[in-house]
Amino acid sequence: MSSGDGFRGVIAPVLTPFGEDGRADAERLVEHAKWLLDEGCTALAPFGTTSEANSLSLDERRSLLEALIDGGIDPARLMPGTGMCSAGDTINLTRHAIEAGCGAVLMLPPFYYKGVSDDGLFAHFASVIDGVGDDRLAVFLYHIPPVAQVGFSLDLIARLREAFPNQVVGLKDSSGEWSNTKSIIEAFPGFCVFSGSEATLLDNLRAGGAGCISATANVNARGLRAVFDAWQSEGADDLQTGATALRLAIQKYPVIPLLKAIISAQRRDDQWAATRAPLWPLDRQVAFEAMDLLEREHGFGIGHRRAA
Amino acid sequence: MSSGDGFRGVIAPVLTPFGEDGRADAERLVEHAKWLLDEGCTALAPFGTTSEANSLSLDERRSLLEALIDGGIDPARLMPGTGMCSAGDTINLTRHAIEAGCGAVLMLPPFYYKGVSDDGLFAHFASVIDGVGDDRLAVFLYHIPPVAQVGFSLDLIARLREAFPNQVVGLKDSSGEWSNTKSIIEAFPGFCVFSGSEATLLDNLRAGGAGCISATANVNARGLRAVFDAWQSEGADDLQTGATALRLAIQKYPVIPLLKAIISAQRRDDQWAATRAPLWPLDRQVAFEAMDLLEREHGFGIGHRRAA
Repeated sequence: MSSGDGFRGVIAPVLTPFGEDGRADAERLVEHAKWLLDEGCTALAPFGTTSEANSLSLDERRSLLEALIDGGIDPARLMPGTGMCSAGDTINLTRHAIEAGCGAVLMLPPFYYKGVSDDGLFAHFASVIDGVGDDRLAVFLYHIPPVAQVGFSLDLIARLREAFPNQVVGLKDSSGEWSNTKSIIEAFPGFCVFSGSEATLLDNLRAGGAGCISATANVNARGLRAVFDAWQSEGADDLQTGATALRLAIQKYPVIPLLKAIISAQRRDDQWAATRAPLWPLDRQVAFEAMDLLEREHGFGIGHRRAA
Repeated sequence: MSSGDGFRGVIAPVLTPFGEDGRADAERLVEHAKWLLDEGCTALAPFGTTSEANSLSLDERRSLLEALIDGGIDPARLMPGTGMCSAGDTINLTRHAIEAGCGAVLMLPPFYYKGVSDDGLFAHFASVIDGVGDDRLAVFLYHIPPVAQVGFSLDLIARLREAFPNQVVGLKDSSGEWSNTKSIIEAFPGFCVFSGSEATLLDNLRAGGAGCISATANVNARGLRAVFDAWQSEGADDLQTGATALRLAIQKYPVIPLLKAIISAQRRDDQWAATRAPLWPLDRQVAFEAMDLLEREHGFGIGHRRAA
C-alpha cells in the first residue's frame, strides 16, 4: 500500500539499547518495541534520531529490523528510518525494509553537504525512489533542520508530491515550529503530516494532521495515546496540557540520555542507560534528580513497570 | 607504517567523475588520479568532501578504491576518506583501505548529532581505532566545521594523540582559519598538519606544517607543487601570491561544480561536468564566463591538456 493513513496516531521513534559489549541489543530492543505497542503506540519508527540510528552501521540497522520482525512485531506497523547521505545506501536500506514488509519508511534528506538547492534535493529523492523501483514504497519525509541542517521547503514537498503522488505520502516535522507544520498540513490535503513533538499533538489533529512521532513516546506512550483517543472529546485540552508539561520538563535535559535513564530505572536494568558515542549518558545523579522532579511536579512515576 | 611523514606536500582530494548512467566512473577516475600525480601531487586523498564522497555508497567507495589501485596507483600514496557517522561503517571502510595497502586514511568525525561533547567524540574515535585493531592504521583527522558542523578542539586532539600516538598521525584543517591551523601545528610537534587550502600553504610550511590538501589541486597541482618545491627559496612568496589569487577567484563560485566544469573543458569531455545530487552542476554559460575570467585575470588556460 502506498498511503500513510495506516500510520495515523502516536508513533515512537524507538530507542536503541546497547549491551555490555557496546553492541546494539536486539533482545532488549524487541522487548521495548512490544511494550511500546502494548502501551498504546499505533506504530513504531525505529532508526530515527532518537534511536541513535546514525551511530548504527548499515549492517546493524538491517539485522535489528529483522530481529524486530522475527520477534513478532507486525512489519506493517513499522516505519524504519532509511535516509542516508548517499542515494545508494538509502536505496539499499529502503529495499531491505520493503522486502521485510514494512508499511513505510522515514527518510532523512542527504545531510552532509549544506546549503544545497531544492533542485539537488529533488534529484536525490527522485534517484532514490526510481532506484528502489517498487510500487509498495511509501515514504515519509523527515524534516529535522535543527539536527540535519538540510530540510524540506514547501516548494520541494510540492514537487515531490506531484512527481511521486503514490510514494511520497507524508512528513514528520521536527522543526519545532508549529507554524511550519500547520503550513504543510494546509498546503497538502491528504498528506499525512506528523508533529515531531506531542506538544502540538492536539493542534496537529485539529488542523487535519496525522498525529505525532515523538521521542518521549518511549516513556509516555499512554499519555500521548490518551490525547489522541480524546482529541474530539471535551477533556482533550487538559490531557494535552499534562502531556506538554511533561514533554517540556524532559526536554530541559539531553533527551535521549534521559529517556534511557528513565527506562533503565523503570526496568531496574542499568544497561539500558548506555548510549553510543558520540552521545554520552547522563550522570546518574543528574538523572535521579531529573526523575525526582518528573515524579514530584508531573506525577510521572518510575515505578509503574518495575522489573519482574 | 604509522607516520604521516610520507604524505608531506600537495595532496588532491580527488574529484569523482560520474558517467552518463549516473554511476561513479572508475575509468575517468583512474585517468584523473594518474594525471594528478603526473602534475605534481605528492599523494591523493580520494573520497573527501570535494570527491562528493558522502554521496557515494559504501559499496561504491570500496569498488572505486580498488579500481584506483588496480589501475596502477600506488596505494601507499593514497589517503582515502573513511569517516562515516557510525563507528561500524567507519571501521569497515578503514579496514578495507588498510587491507588494500593505503598509507593512511582521512577521517571525518561523526557528523549527524550536533553539539556533542569531546568525551563522546573521543569515545567514538577510540572505538573506531580499537575496532580496526591494526598496527598499520594511520589516521589523519578531518576538521571541516563549515560542512560537518562537528570538529576537533585542541583538547580533543591532545587526548587522541596521547591515547593513540602511533595511529593519530595528522590532521587536515579546513576550518578556513589560519590561526586555528597555526595553533595545532604549534601545539603538537611531529603531528602532520595540512591546510585545507593552498592560500596558507607557505604559512603552513614555514610554521612546520606538512602542506595542503586542497580542492583546487584538482586543476592547479603544478602551481601548488611549485610553491611547495620553492618554499625555502626566494621566489616562494610570488608563487604563493599567484596560487592564492587563483584560489580566491575559483572559490567565488560553487567550487566542486566549477572544478568539474574546468576539467570537462580541458578534456573536451562534457560528461566530466556532471555532479551527483544533492550537488548541482554549474550552468554552462556561468562556467564559461568563470573560465574566461580565470584565463584573463590569472593566466589560467583551459587549453593546456586538450583531449587527444
